[in-house]
Amino acid sequence: MERTIRLTLEYDGTDYNGWQVQNASRKGGIRQKKTVQSALEAALARLFCKHIPIIGSGRTDAGVHALGQTAHFSVDSKLPLERVITGLNAFLPDDIVVVDAREETPTFHSRFSAVSKLYRYTIANRPYRLALERRYAWLCSFPLNVKRMRKEARVLQGKHDFSAFRISGSSVKSSVRTIKKIAVRKHGDRIMIDIEADGFLYAMARSIAGTLIDIGRGRLPPGSMRKILLSRKRAAAGVTAPACGLCLVCVHYS
Amino acid sequence: MERTIRLTLEYDGTDYNGWQVQNASRKGGIRQKKTVQSALEAALARLFCKHIPIIGSGRTDAGVHALGQTAHFSVDSKLPLERVITGLNAFLPDDIVVVDAREETPTFHSRFSAVSKLYRYTIANRPYRLALERRYAWLCSFPLNVKRMRKEARVLQGKHDFSAFRISGSSVKSSVRTIKKIAVRKHGDRIMIDIEADGFLYAMARSIAGTLIDIGRGRLPPGSMRKILLSRKRAAAGVTAPACGLCLVCVHYS
Repeated sequence: MERTIRLTLEYDGTDYNGWQVQNASRKGGIRQKKTVQSALEAALARLFCKHIPIIGSGRTDAGVHALGQTAHFSVDSKLPLERVITGLNAFLPDDIVVVDAREETPTFHSRFSAVSKLYRYTIANRPYRLALERRYAWLCSFPLNVKRMRKEARVLQGKHDFSAFRISGSSVKSSVRTIKKIAVRKHGDRIMIDIEADGFLYAMARSIAGTLIDIGRGRLPPGSMRKILLSRKRAAAGVTAPACGLCLVCVHYS
Repeated sequence: MERTIRLTLEYDGTDYNGWQVQNASRKGGIRQKKTVQSALEAALARLFCKHIPIIGSGRTDAGVHALGQTAHFSVDSKLPLERVITGLNAFLPDDIVVVDAREETPTFHSRFSAVSKLYRYTIANRPYRLALERRYAWLCSFPLNVKRMRKEARVLQGKHDFSAFRISGSSVKSSVRTIKKIAVRKHGDRIMIDIEADGFLYAMARSIAGTLIDIGRGRLPPGSMRKILLSRKRAAAGVTAPACGLCLVCVHYS
């Protein structure tokens, strides 16, 4: 009998071209780029001795990390869940780990059943680059006004058209999303921006983070966030913060 | 006029054979191993256009990290301290960063003037390996009794002969040291062991961490720490925890 299994995954996205399997055309042929999905499907193929497609809760961009990405697959096997975890971890590379596996009903879909997602953007706010954890934060060596960032972030809470924080190239029709929570915290020289929403547009989390940074450093005046949101124009917003600082912390299901 | 400059350094020790410059004999010649000290001396040579020896507060073993290692050198140059930092950081590899430079009196010595050092050992206490931050913690997949670890750690506080926590091969005569503070903290799935002492014997921090882990997992019964300390025998203590979990947090001067 077919079982639907949901995995919870951690990965260091530094060396991957994002989640999604994609084909890169090259001179003289098609070359498959290294992605988290392809690494997982390779591990599944070794564990179950056949190709099993896996569907993620959503794509993460190249270089983006995850502490709680979710994905599901269907398989006709009685292998206990504990063995699914240890088996996959044995076949996966160092920078991808399965931390949980659970059985779901056949109607479960890691993307469509998801209620919300939490992304965290980490800034290292200090004059000199990082030696440790340099893969997991964006260095901002200029002073940042965290209070102002926090105040402007609040404007984004709720249901809005987030066109201003979307990079073109996405095929999604509606750009209306609901941000359930947004928080800016400071801990030592790290500033963390937590964004929980029912969905994210392409590069939305990084565009919001970049705009908050531009506000925090004074490139954009107080009150900018409301104007940018209402403009619905990407050009009005701030920079797109680089992928290294972003992490998909968890995906919530009802 | 010669100036004495003290540097504060961060480094990711993963790819280094420790702090100290050393010669590795190889078939057909002498090969210099990659060390933090040699990387710093190479950067100093590029900045000041001559060889300048640098002296660290102490050696860190191969693979051990630092958030606040200190070192000093003397130089006949008027280069402002701010430029010393940015200049060295420009020439240093990604995994070594100078975070501070200050001028000291000619009698200052990064090792002999040090009053105490703080080392932190980080354990990831969870069933599956880490994808993120896998370079900075030791994975212990068995349950650990943190309360018991904390209680037994207290025995080490104060002035003692730490022969039981010293790996042979060191040339230091006295094995008496004073542990000023030792703390075991749990934060999520991480357990941190902080040890501040006036000095550390060879592999002492890792031997203490390994013994506490053996106590926490029940390999050694309650009351073991006192017996091991009094035995002065390395064979009585627990395992030597691996270098990846250890970090030199700071060096204190009066």
